Amino acid sequence: MRIVVLAGGIGGARFLRGLKAAAPDADITVIGNTGDDIHLFGLKVCPDLDTVMYTLGGGINEEQGWGRTDETFRVKEELAAYGVGPEWFGLGDRDFATHIVRTQMMGAGYPLSAVTEALCDRWQPGVRLLPMTDDRVETHVAIEEDGEKKAVHFQEYWVRLRASVPAQAVVPVGAEQAKPAPGVLEAIGAADVILFPPSNPVVSVGTILAIPGIREAIAEAGAPVVGLSPIVGDAPVRGMADKVLAAVGVESTAAAVAAHYGAGLLDGWLVDTVDADKTAEVEAAGIRCRAVPLMMTDIEATAAMAREALTLAEEVRA
Amino acid sequence: MRIVVLAGGIGGARFLRGLKAAAPDADITVIGNTGDDIHLFGLKVCPDLDTVMYTLGGGINEEQGWGRTDETFRVKEELAAYGVGPEWFGLGDRDFATHIVRTQMMGAGYPLSAVTEALCDRWQPGVRLLPMTDDRVETHVAIEEDGEKKAVHFQEYWVRLRASVPAQAVVPVGAEQAKPAPGVLEAIGAADVILFPPSNPVVSVGTILAIPGIREAIAEAGAPVVGLSPIVGDAPVRGMADKVLAAVGVESTAAAVAAHYGAGLLDGWLVDTVDADKTAEVEAAGIRCRAVPLMMTDIEATAAMAREALTLAEEVRA
Repeated sequence: MRIVVLAGGIGGARFLRGLKAAAPDADITVIGNTGDDIHLFGLKVCPDLDTVMYTLGGGINEEQGWGRTDETFRVKEELAAYGVGPEWFGLGDRDFATHIVRTQMMGAGYPLSAVTEALCDRWQPGVRLLPMTDDRVETHVAIEEDGEKKAVHFQEYWVRLRASVPAQAVVPVGAEQAKPAPGVLEAIGAADVILFPPSNPVVSVGTILAIPGIREAIAEAGAPVVGLSPIVGDAPVRGMADKVLAAVGVESTAAAVAAHYGAGLLDGWLVDTVDADKTAEVEAAGIRCRAVPLMMTDIEATAAMAREALTLAEEVRA
Repeated sequence: MRIVVLAGGIGGARFLRGLKAAAPDADITVIGNTGDDIHLFGLKVCPDLDTVMYTLGGGINEEQGWGRTDETFRVKEELAAYGVGPEWFGLGDRDFATHIVRTQMMGAGYPLSAVTEALCDRWQPGVRLLPMTDDRVETHVAIEEDGEKKAVHFQEYWVRLRASVPAQAVVPVGAEQAKPAPGVLEAIGAADVILFPPSNPVVSVGTILAIPGIREAIAEAGAPVVGLSPIVGDAPVRGMADKVLAAVGVESTAAAVAAHYGAGLLDGWLVDTVDADKTAEVEAAGIRCRAVPLMMTDIEATAAMAREALTLAEEVRA
């Protein structure tokens, strides 16, 4: 079974771990968000790709969900001693090595997709991890801070500001001119199932869908497309998805997110059991909907979610 | 008193520490060798400049003479886990930060001289540290290894091979096209004294002198030029200077090194007391010569050497 998954960071990575447990023999291709990539200290940092790679490769800091386990911060402390920031982005020493290798390879002319493949040679994530694009895309967020309207990099909004001010707009700068990375459209076209994990629908999955050709390929794919709601009981399961949903005029409800993706894209949608009352609304919009437990408390619970998604896909297909 | 010092790495840095103790009120400009600069992991590494900066700024690993004190190697271990080398070059985590800052600034368009000044803002070495040039110069060494003739970067010869094979030639690639960095010729022209510390006469001081304009400026400067022999009792005090001296056809003796610099450049030369029998030979070549203790065993011994050099300079001037 060929499964394609559109993934952001922590939510996508954890879902993928459950999916691998649920479908150990599946051929899984992950299309990773790169809109949150950022250049820090002259290095190319790809937080979402790395979170997927570290999580599936056994190198993740389990507690925080991103970054490396058993991490130290000597390089960052020294950079701060030079007065070089930002200090709000927590790059550890082990993590730095990944960005150094990536930057060196890109400087030598390799596209991000080739670099990601090389990094995965070490991590053996058990999936094929593709960046959504080899082109530079940066998600910017329009905000008002200290009375001044400005646009900040998504990481600055998310990490420095912790989404503490309203997002007035979310713009994947460069997306319109970007092309899907090699293999992305082919994987979508050949998929038996396409899954949207409970990742952020705006800045993770939404950014991937903003790359011209990807949304169309998914809509036209013969495979069922099933998503899992990142909103449970009208609030994000984790993170601050509600802040960026507001920016695109979408309510923080499981049903509203399904409608945001739309029946043209989604064939099936899983909501949490606490949102069972919303299945009718989703189905009325033309999307098959089931209410099942959606809390990724551990791998077994997550694997059960993945099994439910695959079951719903089979149901849609039939 | 304005003193200009041509410095390589460890020998130059330790001498400078003694000079600062001997002449605390002097205005010292250091022209640093950059021929041993190397690009590692996509980062610009300047071993000699950093050794001077760390030594005078209190951040050096005293025992090994290069690199940072209290160092860890997390980044390097991770790079090795990615299969990315070289492993023979010992970059520590704290040291990495210096190279990251430097590379980021150079990527932003700053010349090495401006970057060095910025790094020294933190270290406050108490001297003005100038790279010999802002242009790329790389010292290559022609060798024969496993029956194959080839040229390797100086660091590869020095660190990986530990000068274990004969150097057939030493070539400062790019030197002929390089220009002295801003301030270098001005400092030489305005100097009251010019000193050659007991640095490597071929790959350290020799490389600096290979930048068109520097040798001429020193030869024409009104200031006395005094050097200290890096060879004591026909062997290098430290390092493997004899290996590269052979490549340029110079014997490993205190007198031969003085003759290699020549009376056109040197006004005075200090040899160690064990080489007192060579003073006549040096003087016969037109270079004022004194035999004094030249072992940099501690700061006080080194300061005494610096005082002897300044005294000889006064003698030459008079």
